[in-house]
This record gives sequence, C-alpha cells and structure tokens, in this order.
Amino acid sequence: MNATMQKQQARLQAPKAAAHPRVQSVRAPARRSVVPRAAAVEAPAKVSQETVDKCVNAIRFLAIDAVNKAKSGHPGLPMGAAPMSYVLFNEAMKYNPKNPAWANRDRFVLSAGHGSMLQYALMHLVGYDSVTMDDIKSFRQWDSRTPGHPENFLTKGVEVTTGPLGQGICNAVGLAAAEAHLAARFNKPDAKVIDHYTYCILGDGCMMEGISNEACSLAGHWGLGKLIALYDDNNISIDGHTEISFTEDVAARFEALGWHVQHVKDGNTDFDGLRKAVASAKAVTDKPSLIKVSTLIGYGSPNKADTHDVHGAPLGPDETAATRDNLKWPYGEFEVPQEVYDVMRSSCTKGAAAEEEWNAAFAAYKSKYPKEAEELEGLLSNKLPAGWENALPSYTPEDKGLATRQYSQIMLNALAPVLPGLIGGSADLAPSNLTLMKMFGDFQKGSYEERNMRFGVREHAMGAIVNGVALHNTGLIPYCATFYIFTDYMRSAMRMSALSEVGVIYVMTHDSIGLGEDGPTHQPIEHLASFRAMPNMNMFRPCGGNETAGAYKVAVSSRKRPSTIALSRQGMPNLPGCSVDGVAKGAYVIHGGEGTPDAIIIGTGSELPMAVEAAKKLEAEGKKVRVVSMPCWELFAEQSAEYKESVLPKAVTVRVAVEAGSSFGWERYIGQNGKFIGIDDFGASAPADILYAKFGITVDAVVAAAKAQM
Amino acid sequence: MNATMQKQQARLQAPKAAAHPRVQSVRAPARRSVVPRAAAVEAPAKVSQETVDKCVNAIRFLAIDAVNKAKSGHPGLPMGAAPMSYVLFNEAMKYNPKNPAWANRDRFVLSAGHGSMLQYALMHLVGYDSVTMDDIKSFRQWDSRTPGHPENFLTKGVEVTTGPLGQGICNAVGLAAAEAHLAARFNKPDAKVIDHYTYCILGDGCMMEGISNEACSLAGHWGLGKLIALYDDNNISIDGHTEISFTEDVAARFEALGWHVQHVKDGNTDFDGLRKAVASAKAVTDKPSLIKVSTLIGYGSPNKADTHDVHGAPLGPDETAATRDNLKWPYGEFEVPQEVYDVMRSSCTKGAAAEEEWNAAFAAYKSKYPKEAEELEGLLSNKLPAGWENALPSYTPEDKGLATRQYSQIMLNALAPVLPGLIGGSADLAPSNLTLMKMFGDFQKGSYEERNMRFGVREHAMGAIVNGVALHNTGLIPYCATFYIFTDYMRSAMRMSALSEVGVIYVMTHDSIGLGEDGPTHQPIEHLASFRAMPNMNMFRPCGGNETAGAYKVAVSSRKRPSTIALSRQGMPNLPGCSVDGVAKGAYVIHGGEGTPDAIIIGTGSELPMAVEAAKKLEAEGKKVRVVSMPCWELFAEQSAEYKESVLPKAVTVRVAVEAGSSFGWERYIGQNGKFIGIDDFGASAPADILYAKFGITVDAVVAAAKAQM
Repeated sequence: MNATMQKQQARLQAPKAAAHPRVQSVRAPARRSVVPRAAAVEAPAKVSQETVDKCVNAIRFLAIDAVNKAKSGHPGLPMGAAPMSYVLFNEAMKYNPKNPAWANRDRFVLSAGHGSMLQYALMHLVGYDSVTMDDIKSFRQWDSRTPGHPENFLTKGVEVTTGPLGQGICNAVGLAAAEAHLAARFNKPDAKVIDHYTYCILGDGCMMEGISNEACSLAGHWGLGKLIALYDDNNISIDGHTEISFTEDVAARFEALGWHVQHVKDGNTDFDGLRKAVASAKAVTDKPSLIKVSTLIGYGSPNKADTHDVHGAPLGPDETAATRDNLKWPYGEFEVPQEVYDVMRSSCTKGAAAEEEWNAAFAAYKSKYPKEAEELEGLLSNKLPAGWENALPSYTPEDKGLATRQYSQIMLNALAPVLPGLIGGSADLAPSNLTLMKMFGDFQKGSYEERNMRFGVREHAMGAIVNGVALHNTGLIPYCATFYIFTDYMRSAMRMSALSEVGVIYVMTHDSIGLGEDGPTHQPIEHLASFRAMPNMNMFRPCGGNETAGAYKVAVSSRKRPSTIALSRQGMPNLPGCSVDGVAKGAYVIHGGEGTPDAIIIGTGSELPMAVEAAKKLEAEGKKVRVVSMPCWELFAEQSAEYKESVLPKAVTVRVAVEAGSSFGWERYIGQNGKFIGIDDFGASAPADILYAKFGITVDAVVAAAKAQM
Repeated sequence: MNATMQKQQARLQAPKAAAHPRVQSVRAPARRSVVPRAAAVEAPAKVSQETVDKCVNAIRFLAIDAVNKAKSGHPGLPMGAAPMSYVLFNEAMKYNPKNPAWANRDRFVLSAGHGSMLQYALMHLVGYDSVTMDDIKSFRQWDSRTPGHPENFLTKGVEVTTGPLGQGICNAVGLAAAEAHLAARFNKPDAKVIDHYTYCILGDGCMMEGISNEACSLAGHWGLGKLIALYDDNNISIDGHTEISFTEDVAARFEALGWHVQHVKDGNTDFDGLRKAVASAKAVTDKPSLIKVSTLIGYGSPNKADTHDVHGAPLGPDETAATRDNLKWPYGEFEVPQEVYDVMRSSCTKGAAAEEEWNAAFAAYKSKYPKEAEELEGLLSNKLPAGWENALPSYTPEDKGLATRQYSQIMLNALAPVLPGLIGGSADLAPSNLTLMKMFGDFQKGSYEERNMRFGVREHAMGAIVNGVALHNTGLIPYCATFYIFTDYMRSAMRMSALSEVGVIYVMTHDSIGLGEDGPTHQPIEHLASFRAMPNMNMFRPCGGNETAGAYKVAVSSRKRPSTIALSRQGMPNLPGCSVDGVAKGAYVIHGGEGTPDAIIIGTGSELPMAVEAAKKLEAEGKKVRVVSMPCWELFAEQSAEYKESVLPKAVTVRVAVEAGSSFGWERYIGQNGKFIGIDDFGASAPADILYAKFGITVDAVVAAAKAQM
C-alpha cells in the first residue's frame, strides 16, 4: 500500500467533513490484516487471502486493459466493486457457468451497467463460454459479445440489459418477485424446487433515479427476502463528488422502505465483512436486503482513484503502469495467472454439482407431485400451452359493443385459466384499466402464489419490474397497465422491453381525447406516433371485441417483442369484418373489398366506426369506398408487397385516415395529398362527445376530406 | 358527529392492524372541542371555530356540487383536505387574489391535481376573478376556466398545471429554488424584496411516484427552507387502501432525505395542530418541511368517506343529501353563506395591503440600490434585454468544426452574461453535456445566487423542477441537460413544459449512434420522431456553429414554447450556407438554390455534411441538386405556403433525406416514393464511424438513393 492508497484508506476511515453529513457516522474498522482468516464466512478455507487478492486484481486488470484497448469505457466501478463481486461470484452465488439457462440459478444484475467490464471479467474468469478472452479483447467493438453495456440478447449469462440507471435494480425486484411467485406456487414442505437468490450491484446513479425508489418501496412492501442489493457507495458520479447533489441518508431511506440494511465500511479490503453481510442478508427472509458497501472508485490507481476521472475514461498507459506497480500486479496486458483461473473456474464444478443435485431433487418432486411438476415444466419450457388461443372469445356485430378496455378485461380473464404464466397488474388503476384476473387474489407477502400484482402509482418501476419477471425466463408472461398517457412516465422501461426482446404486454387504457373530462394532462395525442417510431414494439389500437382478441393473440405469442395495446374508455360497436386474423396482418379491408375503390378510408380503434359510417354516406352518393382497419402498423409493414398492394392499391390516391391522435407519420399510408382527420394539438377538458365535435373528428369531416380529393 | 363519522374518527385514533406497520405509531389526540381556541396560532381571533367550520364546509360542498353537476370528478380529496387548505389560504399564505401576478406572493401548488375542485373552490371563495360561481358550475366543461385538472395557462392564479402525479411537488421545488435564487441575488441585509413561501399539497399517489423522491432528495440537499409540503395522508388510492401497495414509512423517508418532518394526526378537525405545524415549518429555515396530515378522504360522507368510491366519482344525490345532513349544512346547491365570503374574501384586503407594503419596500430598495433594482425589474418584466442576441457568435466555413455540444457550451457561455435570467444545469452529465456557465458557481445551500444547477442523476425531477423555475414567472430562463436518450426518463415533464407553455431549453447531447461505443441503451433512434409528434415543442437538430446559435436564438425567444436541442457528441464542419436566420424558418436551402433541381437532399445535424457531399458527387455527374437543411420541423410547418414551395418545390419528386434516426414521419417531406437514409432498428456498441458504415448511413448511400429515383 503506497502513500496515496494509505491516504485514500484514511479518507474512508476518517469522519467526513461537516459539509457531507451523510457519511459522518461512517467509520471503518481499523484495517485488517491480509492474512487469511480461518473463520471466514462461506469462504472455502483453501483459498488464501493472497489468492483472493489475485483474483480480485485479475478482475480489475481485465477491466483496465479492456477499456484501454477499446479507448473507451468505465474502469472505475470494476476496480472498486471487484472485491464484493468476487465474494458473490466465487463464494455466495449458486450458478453453473456451463448452463446459463439452469432455472434455479441465482440471478445477478449489474444495475450500474456502465461497469460492464466487471461483469464480463467475472463471466470470463468463472468460465462462461459466452465471454472468451477474445471477447474481452474486443470490448465495445462491432459484432462483439462484450458491448458497452451488458445486453441479455447478445451475451448468454447476462440476465438483463442495463445501462440506463436504475433499470437494473427494478429488474432485480422483478426477478425476485418471479422467484417468490414460482416458489409459492410449486414448492412443497419437503421439496423446494424453486429456491434462489437475486443479487444486484447498484451505484449512486441508480440510487438517485426515482425509478429505484419506486421499485425498492414495492420490494419492501412485498417483503422480497431473497433480494440482496449491494450498493457500491463510492461517492463519485460524473459531475464529481456526490456531495454536490446527493447527500441524503440512503441507508435510512431504505430502512424507511422496509429493507434490512447493513453497511460494510471498507469494501476495498474487508472480505470477511462482505461475507458476513451477505450471510446476514440471506438470514433475513422477510425483507429485501441492502448492503451499503463503501468503496474507492478506481481502487488501486495511485492518481485517479476516488476521482471522477476514473469513472468513464481509460486509465491510459502511464496510470495503468502505475496501478500495476501499486497493486503489485506483475502480469502483462490481458494476462491471467493460472492460479486465478483455477480458483474462479471452480464455479463450474460447484455449479454443475449444484445443478445435478437440483435435477435429482426435481426428479423426486416429479414422481411425488406429477401434476405440479408437469405445470412447472410447461412453464420452464417457455412454450405456450397447445390451443391456448381457443380461449379467446369472438364477437358478431349483434353483440353489444363495449369499450375495448372492457374487452381487454374479458381477454385477460379468458386467458388466465389457460395460460399458467400470465401474471400482472396495474399502477393503481385496476378499476379503470380493468386488469384484475378475477379468479386470482393479490400477489402479496404471504400470497406470492397469486397473480394480480398491485404496483401502486409507480409506472416506471412497474415496467422495469415486469421486464425482470419476463427475463426470469421461466414461462411467466407479464402484463402491466396504466392510462396510455402515463407511458410518458415509463418510456425508458418500455424501450428496454423492446431492446431486450421481452414480450411484455402493456395494457394502456383511456387512449385518446375519448376519455373526456380529465382533460389534456390525461389525453394522449402523440403517443401512437411515438410508439410506432420505436423499434421492436408492436403498437396495437384495436376496434371492438374481435380486434382486441386479435391484439392479445399476437401479444401473447410475441415472446420476444413487447406489445402496447391502446384501449378505449368509451364503447364502440363490433363492426362487420373485424377479425382476429385481420389484426395479425396489421391492416386489412373490413368494407368494400371488391374491385378498385374511388377512395380508401383508413381508421383505427374507436374511430374505425366513423370510417365505416363515412363510407356508407359516400356510397349513398354513388362512390365506391373501401375501409381499411389498421390496428398495428408494425405487423402491416412486415407483410408481403403483394398483400400490402391488395389492401392499399397504389392506384387509389384518394385516401383519408381517421384516428383521434397526431397526424404524425400518417403520410406513409395516405400520401402527401391524403387527408388526416385527428388532432395535432393538446386536448381539453369536456365530455368526450363534445371534444370529438369541437376538434372536428366526425363522420362529416371524414366525408368532406374524401370529397375534397375526388 | 353521527355513528359512521365516530367510527371513522375512531379508526384514525386507533392503532392500525399489524398488517399496516406504517401507521401503527399514529395516534390522534382526543378529539378537541369545537369551541374557538383563543390561543390559535396565526388564526385571527375574530373568526370563530363555527365560522371556520362553515368555511371548510363551503369548500367541501362547492367540490361536491360541482362534481355532481359535471357528473365527473374527484370530490374525495377536497373534502379531506379542506381544513388544511383553509389554514393555508385564509391564515398562512400571503397573496392578493386581485393580482395573481404579484411577484412576491406565496406560491401554492396542488400536486394532487385531480382534487382540482379544492383549488377552484378556494380561489372562488377568496376572490380570484378567474373563478366565478359560473366557472364553478361549468367545472370540466368545454371552454370553462375550471378544467378537470388545474391548468396555469387557462386560469389566472393557478401557478402550475398538475394532474400527472408527482409533477406538482417537483414544480414546487423549482418555485422554491427560484425564490431562493432571487432572494440570494437581490435581497440586502436591510431589504428583503424577494421573500415568500412555496406551499404544496400532495397525496399518496405523488408520494409513490419516483419523480417526487428525486425532487425531494434534491430539495433536502439544497436545504430549501421555505418549501412547505402538506402530505394529505388519507390511506386511499384508486386500487383501494394504500396498504395493498404502499406501506413504507414516508415520514422516515423524508427525514432521510434531509427534511423537517411533522405529523398532524387529525387533519380533519385539529385546526390548531395544522396552524402550529405550519408555524413550525416556517420557523425551520434550513430544511424543507413536510407536514404529514392524516385525513379521511371524503370526510363527512356517511357512507363513502374512507373508501376509494369517493376518490374519483360524484357522490350522487342521495349521498350528497346524507352528507349535507351529516355535516349540518343547510345551504342549497352552490349556495355559499355570506359569512363565508366575508371571512374568505378578507384575503383580498389583507393581500392588497401586503402588496402595497411590498411596493413601498421595493421603492425604498430601488432608491437605495438602483442597479440591483433595475436588474430585478428587468427580470420581473419577463422581457429579454435589448440586443441580447448579438452575443451569439457566428462562424464561417473556415472555422474549425466542433461537435454541436461544444457549440452549445459556447452559446450558453456567450448568453449567460447578457441574459440575467439564464440558469440551469445537467443531470450529472455536465462534463459530457458541456453545460456549465464558467463565470458562475454552483447553486447550492449557501450559494443560491449562483446559476449552475447540479441535478444529480434525476432527469425526470430535473425537467419538472425547471418547469417550476420558469413558472415562478420572474424572468428566469431555465435550461437543463442530459443525454438525448434519457428524455425517455423525463418525457412527462417535457410534455408538461409543452402543455403548460413553458419555454424551457432542453439541451440534449449525444443525439444519435454517433455517440459510438456506449451502445444501443444510449443511442437515440426514434426520439426525433417522438418529439416532432409532440404538440408545442420545438425539436431542433442543428448542424455546426451557426445553426446551434440559431437554435438558441429561437429557444431563448420562445418563452411560451419549450425547445429541445439535439446535439452531437462528434464534430462536424461549418457548412457554407448554414445560418441563424435559416434555423428560424425551420428548413432552408443551403446549396443549389437557383432554378429547379433534379433532386433534393434533405439533411439535419451531423448528417447535413453528408447531404452536401452527396450533392457534390451527383453534380460531378451532371445533376443539379439542392440541399435543404431542416433543423426544426415545427418552425418550417409554420412558414407560408410560398416559402415552403420555394424550399421544397412540389415538382421535384426525387428526394432523399438523411438523418441518423428513425424514418418515421419523413414521408411528409420526401413523399411516398422518396428515400430515407437512416436507422430504424436499435444501434450497437462500436466506434461511431464503424456504426455509420455498418448501418449504411453514408454519402454513397445517399447518392445511390437519389440515383435510384432518377
């Protein structure tokens, strides 16, 4: 330990200046000896502290070297968090690097995703095939498996995609909720077939984001005892020391949220402290655990540790050399001593043994509880039960028209009995979103086996939590709900669904000015356009019962693509021609299909009946008019050119689209000379029918728009 | 008090069941007598408790009657929060209903905006001209001044628009920050010209939203002692009792956030408790104050109080009659006894006197501190200083090209000295967003006069806080910054800027795959489209120094429309033709202006140079090509038809657009047969030049796209 490190260590031990009240009470114990401790909790006695230090330094230098080579990346967090992550990956966690898909593995989430090299270094050292040394060397390069932030869809063994801060800890809450749910449903007093922990490392940035407070409040409420979060408290963020903007008492906040909170005051060298904290966290079964771990960012770098310079930039050759010297690391660039591999890759043998043990236990469970085992195996297969779609009801024009949110409720309640994985709920709007599955109770502490989740008014966390539930990858099909306007609160989580290839079903009701009196703060205008522009997101706006069924059919089938279903507050008729199959094609003809029409009217959702009425008015005047329902642009874009031409023949340029939303994007289907009937300004507070009339979204307006082109 | 009310009162007093640990410790004092208390803090002695009760019931029944008449709305909160709001509006707050624009008024924010009838009832009773009895009777109707949620742009005296939960408390933090800033800049030891409180009523929903935790953490850090938030803790949300999803200890959380926390255990009848709590909150000057006020939602309704039925639906005639009976309210629908007006409208005389006193104090200040007074008056006029735009630098093609985030930094630092209202900062990305004004220090406890705000990693709160700063309406021009991708975290706040007509400047850097290695979690794709679709939002994507100056010129001038400026991480040249004036028109010709071209290439931001290069390649082959820069679609849409035709002649159908983002919406300008060069899928992690090549955003691709149409 050189002078700088001693100074850094002293900083950790000394009470902070009064300007930083948050850590005033933090005092590290006198520095411990580096002699191996016989009484180390959970540490295999055979691994000496010297070897542990080597492993930890191997993690650090893989990160340093990879970031240097990439000339880009974040070495600071891996250097500081290497000790805690070593304890997790080499001692605490149960997993098999050779089978990242083992259902009962412990889950690990690096919520501070910019520290991705920490995760890649660990995965490489413990023996994941997905992260070879070549992958490490191609960190942040085109076509590599080691992108700038961890990506679940690219690198096997990465559970969730992180980077946008706070998302990961919410995913971890979802993973822990999924575990709790499956355990409560399937475990027996004599057989715990689902029984694992969820670990998460998060940093100051995650802690500042509101989404993490939402999810952690809910995790505390739910009492998710097998969620263990390690807070890498290094006091550094990009703007500098966190004292310039973040001086709250995080530990006290988490206690207020109902968490079990511990503090490891020297996360750089106190391995026993880390081990004991993890053991204590495991022992507390009725509360999630937060372990605040005080560390030095960039630990080991003589000149950059404890500064924001080491957060997001390469150390560079000089400082790297100084750090090698300082940490007494004689090995070359990307060189890992065999001793380190020997210790770290014991995870493979330990993991394989654990998996084998579980397989045996599962076999015993299966023979004793064949019915439960069959259902669980069905879930774990991630396949949908045969014939599930037959549960979806169908409608005729004679059926009384309801609001599509009501049809959505019918679909959810029809699907729940045939889809054992369906689970979800609303952000405190269940009576408005109509999302309760009536045959189930609430997922709560003491009733985790139930399937109605009550998220509270926490939209953003809700989205990220259901991403975690889905990425538990055990057959659960989560849905979540709020008013469509409040997708603005959860957009990042929804985008993460799309990017991470997670088939979440977003049930979004009150989808237009049709909600009426609540006014412009609650009326979506640009939201359809904004989701149609988002990659890998199905944006549905169904009309009537059959199209709502069709939207659910695609949404449930789409396990790698999220679906957002925009649903009406107000009622609408079941139009002739509307069908489940039509929805699957994205757009289809519901009226006036034969021959070449004089005009095409395109409509969606609650405005589709207007399109039909307008067509009839025009037909009464001798025009030939086709009506196209377009509930999902993305699916239509994927159809063949022939199909597209059959629905929207290029020769027919007289086109009108009607939709109670922004015109933005509609030129794609109506052309530059077509007319759009909708609303490009904010709405207003008034009864819905008044709003439609005042904003000119009427049958007459559609008729006039068509005539203007004829 | 009838039997039901006694039961309800008993529930408040009794310890909760163990399932609800949060309120176990809450014990209300024995119910007080309704005899007037001589020692009431701040209560004018002449108002008897009987009269106070009448005023409070008048508030309740205006809310009940208006919601009944509208057949829509939220009576529950106004009924429960009427006592605390009476204490605020009739006793604690300093304001003049006859001049809602008085600069030194106390600010009030109803963060629980669904309880809008509380605010309207109060405003009507105390004498705001903007809320007449006719307005109350047209609650939630077309063209009324009493929309479903409070709207600052519609109803004079409403400070901010609320409804989306949590926004209001963040606005309140911004209002309090603005007060602290102006006070620190302009007050003198002998003259406090800016000296007011900011009050906020928020509910359980606001408390659950992450945005409120972000803002309240920052308010605690900043030590905003004149922010007083009253938490209407009624234990009811839409899904039912909050115990189904919200059992954290809110008071302890706020203590952890650095707030001064009090609890009024009986917010229904303990007026002295409310008065004392407000007085104590005022006395604590170095911390914001939270007063947790335990209330019954729908207080007074014999059958619906304390249930979610009263949250968001009319009481209906029977229950209204029962409530009238229960609260002994003999008056008819919309009837207010004169005695209530007499007491409540004393606010007008008190307020006028307070304003007059302030005017006199300001006159004295002006004669003693003429320079400061002149600057302050300039701010309060909400007018920009003459000639401010001359501070913007201009560039020639010979000037070395920088990244537009660097030009943005230059603009901010050029404007700061000439715009005394410019204030803002970044969500912990100042060194990346380049948003520091170098001549100023940090806005912090002890240095509120400084103008660099450090928001921490709290994007959503940042947006809502700067909305509050702007809506302080005292000449402050706030900007805020993060990576463009993280607009996904703050979209609701940005939409509230647009809806509320607030000219916030959103400085959004790293605007495309051009950011490179950080990968798809950090690369905006659909974001330009999603903001172009949003009403009343200028979405800029400038190229080079002159266009960045042009974007700032419009953004600063647009005090009623927010601007989002998408800025590059990477450098680009200063192209000939790029101009400040061109930006103001939204789109303009920068190359090949004369005559009718064979093709038009449209580009924005960092891809505009590609458009020019492609044009030159085509010209070398004998084609006549026009290049149009289109930095702001919204401004172009507002130009005359002639101007539009002069830039994009209809006759020229060979069109290519190039932009490193989604194609969505571009058919508006390139037509159905034009070609778009951009990216419709998520990006990837790799160096920027590799990404451009791999995703096919190249000069050659632009050339080929044009040729394919020729």
